[in-house]
Amino acid sequence: MVQMRPRVSVEQVEEGEELAPKFDEQGLIACITTDAKNGEVLMLGYMNREALEKTIQTGEAHYWSRSRQTLWHKGASSGLVQTVEEMRIDDDQDAVLLRVRVAGSGASCHVGYYSCFYRQVPVGAAHRKGQKLVFIESTKTFDPQDVYGDAPNPTVL
Amino acid sequence: MVQMRPRVSVEQVEEGEELAPKFDEQGLIACITTDAKNGEVLMLGYMNREALEKTIQTGEAHYWSRSRQTLWHKGASSGLVQTVEEMRIDDDQDAVLLRVRVAGSGASCHVGYYSCFYRQVPVGAAHRKGQKLVFIESTKTFDPQDVYGDAPNPTVL
Repeated sequence: MVQMRPRVSVEQVEEGEELAPKFDEQGLIACITTDAKNGEVLMLGYMNREALEKTIQTGEAHYWSRSRQTLWHKGASSGLVQTVEEMRIDDDQDAVLLRVRVAGSGASCHVGYYSCFYRQVPVGAAHRKGQKLVFIESTKTFDPQDVYGDAPNPTVL
Repeated sequence: MVQMRPRVSVEQVEEGEELAPKFDEQGLIACITTDAKNGEVLMLGYMNREALEKTIQTGEAHYWSRSRQTLWHKGASSGLVQTVEEMRIDDDQDAVLLRVRVAGSGASCHVGYYSCFYRQVPVGAAHRKGQKLVFIESTKTFDPQDVYGDAPNPTVL
């Protein structure tokens, strides 16, 4: 069983050794996932209490799919399972950080790219020259059609 | 002016060159901030439209403070200004990634640590041996009392 404590004081939450996560109104906590191999940020996901528990217990990343409204064992359909090398929690315990090893092609993005963050937004001086997003990954690591078939796209407009 | 487009199709959002961010019901988009120096994750913040615009225009990180309900120019009171080296946006454009250079001591956490993610959560085999959080930063980079004085602590229980 994963022990999660009620939040009783700022000192407990910020300086203590107890897991006392803050879930938002939807019952979710944000989760940043990075590649343990090189530190690259792969994705930002969300966990409900069950997903957080299962991740801690199994050592494989589980999320809450907001588009499908279901527990999501990452890689169950794609094979791109994420094995957790390290989990961290932040100061006020409302965000989690995972460092993972990714199975298969090593990709994490449902569009087929390695990282979900495959486009740059021009900022500052670059922004004043042009506002188009810039692709920093030029090729997909897999074909989503091969991996997901006719499963509905999770992107919500 | 920062051009932000209405979201009209999955293809536009995922594969296009237009910035078409998705703000949640509170009008916020999540922002992962990493240290450009070494790739370490420093914090997870949130931006409203104005904070995103100001970050893009000025090249310095602006957030929305959920605890204070106000626009937050990071470093305005602490001196720990974050200069943006790169901004990225994710596949469905509901999360932003910043790679920043941090002024002053280089810290980003209001508790005084370098990163907000200064504690590990034991996972898998380690979890079965014990559930206490493990501090991975042993010393604070600054004294919050010196930097923030009597300003209210932003952690919400």
